[in-house]
Amino acid sequence: MKTIIHKWKSISLIEEDVKLPTGSSITHTTIQHPGAAVILPITSNGKVILINQFRPSLKKWLLELPAGTMEQGETPLDCAKRELEEETGYSAGQFQSLGQVTPLAGFCDEIQHLFVASELNLTTRFSCDDDEVIEVLELTVEELQQKIRNDQITDTKTIACLSKAQLCGYL
Amino acid sequence: MKTIIHKWKSISLIEEDVKLPTGSSITHTTIQHPGAAVILPITSNGKVILINQFRPSLKKWLLELPAGTMEQGETPLDCAKRELEEETGYSAGQFQSLGQVTPLAGFCDEIQHLFVASELNLTTRFSCDDDEVIEVLELTVEELQQKIRNDQITDTKTIACLSKAQLCGYL
Repeated sequence: MKTIIHKWKSISLIEEDVKLPTGSSITHTTIQHPGAAVILPITSNGKVILINQFRPSLKKWLLELPAGTMEQGETPLDCAKRELEEETGYSAGQFQSLGQVTPLAGFCDEIQHLFVASELNLTTRFSCDDDEVIEVLELTVEELQQKIRNDQITDTKTIACLSKAQLCGYL
Repeated sequence: MKTIIHKWKSISLIEEDVKLPTGSSITHTTIQHPGAAVILPITSNGKVILINQFRPSLKKWLLELPAGTMEQGETPLDCAKRELEEETGYSAGQFQSLGQVTPLAGFCDEIQHLFVASELNLTTRFSCDDDEVIEVLELTVEELQQKIRNDQITDTKTIACLSKAQLCGYL
């Protein structure tokens, strides 16, 4: 059984019966999310492009990699291309998948698809959603690591994507 | 203005008016969460203790660091001590703060407080919540990195906490 409690944007809050590996069933509350793309844009001189974004839920600015929710019918790669342009004004000649992460497994089914974007070109397009307030920044890997150490970067998708990129030899 | 749409456990789904840095106001939907503690337990021979946990929202098993939601009146450190024992059966002689991360800034105000736990002792206590199905594992740093690279570890709090621990010289 599945009950929709509330919907907003493309997100739903639901209650559903889930069978556990033990054989017993529980009623569980889940945020259903269509998934998102996260982009790590690397410039020709090895810097990373981030956005400084006002987050209404936390009521503060967060330094994050560009990212956004997948629209209906969109693949993760299509979403990555669109969000990179919308949030930073850059397009990329090359996208490489860095796999997937899950941000809040306790009560949300969102999957975040990670991409490294390179061969960047600044386009004229730059069109944020109405509730997005954004600045674009370029940082070195050393600056990023310093900001992660001292809590100036707290966003887990950003830290996880940077970590995977380093483990896979992109940074 | 703030409206509570739904409550479950210690979590609330709310709608509230938020003033943006531009001066304009929006109505924003937020998951209000009391915050959580995430624990990176390091054994005397440098291995990390993780749990393999069935996650009803994703309907699969995730390999994660022990973690849990703060109870009313609990400090992040109290929560870390309690969750470490409940989820792994270990207590720790030493806890060191690794700062804070935010898992889902787009629509959730949760703050995750990160701790390194060392001087571990296996206690007899081991009492999961009814909806938790958990196995305890010990992995080397190399095994962890391999599992992050190949998407066997996808949980962002786990990847972010391991990354911060490495940047701060704990691993």
